[in-house]
Amino acid sequence: MYLAHSMTKLIDELSKLPTIGPKTAQRLAFYILKASQEDVRRLAEVILEVKEKIKNCSICYNITEDDPCSICQDIKRNKKIICVVQQASDIIALEKTKEYKGTYHVLGGAISPLDGITPEHLRIKELLKRIADNQIEEIIIATNPNVEGEATAIYLTKLIKPLGLKLTRIAYGIPVGGDLEYADEVTLAKALEGRIQL
Amino acid sequence: MYLAHSMTKLIDELSKLPTIGPKTAQRLAFYILKASQEDVRRLAEVILEVKEKIKNCSICYNITEDDPCSICQDIKRNKKIICVVQQASDIIALEKTKEYKGTYHVLGGAISPLDGITPEHLRIKELLKRIADNQIEEIIIATNPNVEGEATAIYLTKLIKPLGLKLTRIAYGIPVGGDLEYADEVTLAKALEGRIQL
Repeated sequence: MYLAHSMTKLIDELSKLPTIGPKTAQRLAFYILKASQEDVRRLAEVILEVKEKIKNCSICYNITEDDPCSICQDIKRNKKIICVVQQASDIIALEKTKEYKGTYHVLGGAISPLDGITPEHLRIKELLKRIADNQIEEIIIATNPNVEGEATAIYLTKLIKPLGLKLTRIAYGIPVGGDLEYADEVTLAKALEGRIQL
Repeated sequence: MYLAHSMTKLIDELSKLPTIGPKTAQRLAFYILKASQEDVRRLAEVILEVKEKIKNCSICYNITEDDPCSICQDIKRNKKIICVVQQASDIIALEKTKEYKGTYHVLGGAISPLDGITPEHLRIKELLKRIADNQIEEIIIATNPNVEGEATAIYLTKLIKPLGLKLTRIAYGIPVGGDLEYADEVTLAKALEGRIQL
């Protein structure tokens, strides 16, 4: 044992975080060791605070300190449009575009039988209740463009289509700034399929 | 503001850590939010504990909870040999080789006039005192192979050479598993210069 016990423990705990390998964990641990007492105390505090204060919005299940969340409370938001996402972090990505003025609904994952996630594990009942109670005009499905996200989109389509409201899915295609040559064939096929008239 | 305040604060604090960009900070923050109360409490605890318990060994300045550190306390270590390194983290790298059975001395950096680090900022006086007090037989310089590390090695050589003990530097050369074709010319020149007889 050539490394102090509390350092080993810190490196172990940091290694459990996603994207943090043992080398990075070691580097972070040495940084924390050298940082000022105050900086370190603040880091530990915010880590605990987040667990304490953050809850889910009772309307859209976004993460929030106040219930309902700031988006659901915002009177400038169009409450007749709901964008359905898998995770609260997807809302951040969509909000960054500054394009969307409707509300959200966080499913809490995607259908994935291999991981034991069935529709019952997702907040689909809650979505259907929102639709029934609020004269919703449009549902935009923004699940991830992978097998699980697709399965979830298909499942939602089957449930929502018969309700007679507008149902859309965000477009698949080649990313802006991307290069046709390097696009994979599935994306390219989707881009062709989703072509718009000029 | 579409993100809860305590989440924003956590992402800000995590972004201050080395190698953690804003995207990774966000990912880590969401991971922490989802982790169990117990895991999060333990992470916060070890972060604080490390600042509290870790100090420098009064002999070699390695980081340690007990003074002297486990290496300086180890009776199987050869106390007549000192390997001089810049940082305590360098000791971890050298110990992993399991090849070295002497002791260490942590300088606490390297000479770098541009950053305002002069020899007085490093633990050089302490090294000279160790040499004077302990009949040291060999000093191995293991500063980093860059301008600052080299300058420090040259400075130490000037001070220690006249003392008449064995003074060595770890070898520069092409890394094991490396490819001659891709080695830079400085490394290759060092590898030629440091060639050994077969």
